[in-house]
Amino acid sequence: MLAEAAVGEIQPGMLVGLGTGRTARRGVKALAERLRVEGFKVDCIATSEATERLARELELNVVDFALVEEIDYLFDGCDEVDAHLRMLKGSGGAMTRERIIAWASKRRVYMVDGHKVVENLGTNATLSVAVMAFGLASTRASLRAAGLNGVCRRTMDGDLFVTDNGNLILDVPLTPDHSLEELAAHLNDVPGVVDHGLFLGEADEVLVDRGGKIEKMNRSV
Amino acid sequence: MLAEAAVGEIQPGMLVGLGTGRTARRGVKALAERLRVEGFKVDCIATSEATERLARELELNVVDFALVEEIDYLFDGCDEVDAHLRMLKGSGGAMTRERIIAWASKRRVYMVDGHKVVENLGTNATLSVAVMAFGLASTRASLRAAGLNGVCRRTMDGDLFVTDNGNLILDVPLTPDHSLEELAAHLNDVPGVVDHGLFLGEADEVLVDRGGKIEKMNRSV
Repeated sequence: MLAEAAVGEIQPGMLVGLGTGRTARRGVKALAERLRVEGFKVDCIATSEATERLARELELNVVDFALVEEIDYLFDGCDEVDAHLRMLKGSGGAMTRERIIAWASKRRVYMVDGHKVVENLGTNATLSVAVMAFGLASTRASLRAAGLNGVCRRTMDGDLFVTDNGNLILDVPLTPDHSLEELAAHLNDVPGVVDHGLFLGEADEVLVDRGGKIEKMNRSV
Repeated sequence: MLAEAAVGEIQPGMLVGLGTGRTARRGVKALAERLRVEGFKVDCIATSEATERLARELELNVVDFALVEEIDYLFDGCDEVDAHLRMLKGSGGAMTRERIIAWASKRRVYMVDGHKVVENLGTNATLSVAVMAFGLASTRASLRAAGLNGVCRRTMDGDLFVTDNGNLILDVPLTPDHSLEELAAHLNDVPGVVDHGLFLGEADEVLVDRGGKIEKMNRSV
């Protein structure tokens, strides 16, 4: 339902951004199914190598993002969202590419299950911070000075998790007394930080699955 | 003279950051010479692969930066500096690592020739912006919207210049009506921008070579 709702607005010939993660995968499958049933085509840009592989398997037309200035429509998932459409992303480790594509997209729709709508970001999810391996200890020291104590994400095999761009991820617990806007601005300034999971202004609409019923959250202007 | 002045404060046992570029190379050589003559040792962290190669050739003890939280002293060069110790860096393409190391350093001293002291940054140098190849066109569109029109840096052979971290460099002309602080904050926010050449608060002291006479510029507190 949620996935079908997220791909419902897509029109023939659009350039569509495809998110990353479990929920986004369902969207990619729903898009492929819709194109098959309704017999039209779109071009796609993937936010991760995993999504690109899935899209190619489903015979979606994936184009090279390097030369693209503007994307018509993006759908993606998120880890948590609050009433102001501020989101935590990054459990899939792809937030850098996800944000670049969100900034390039004219309309951005995110999908979540109802239990991910929270009063304060960080209730169940952690803040993901993508950092360069170069200077890791000094970057962690800068983050600690801002009250952020993170652990390096590892794979199931115990190896360090490395993003598609070759960076590491720190998973940092958030507390309700963190000002999210100040935190995001500070993280953007720390030189070893490549990106982070605070997506405060990217969502134009969030679709929430409330036990099969789809609720829309919109940004109040 | 300039190089000797820059390494003059270094004490036995210090952890020393080594800059990148022609001026910094002279500093690395002056440091190696001083250690040889005075018979003491320091540990070094290099801001680029090129500097690390030079340091090893000169038998300096280079340590791995990944585990280091704090550096005692950094010397480096810059492309231009104004009266407020705001600098343009990045002609060597190493500004990301240079800034990470500057943030980790307790004292940062930069060396310039007198002709690089300017009233407005951008007089002779361009602003270097390190960007991810991923989403290059959309990142350039974001920069154009902020009045920044850059060209991709190329090597002498005509290939795209790729940094030690695998990014590309845009060389952007600056005009005196750009507010440098606003520009730096904006660049830090654009997701495809990894780093840039505006080093507005990093210099503790700048040593200026005025025809062989060394002049010190300090930050007025």
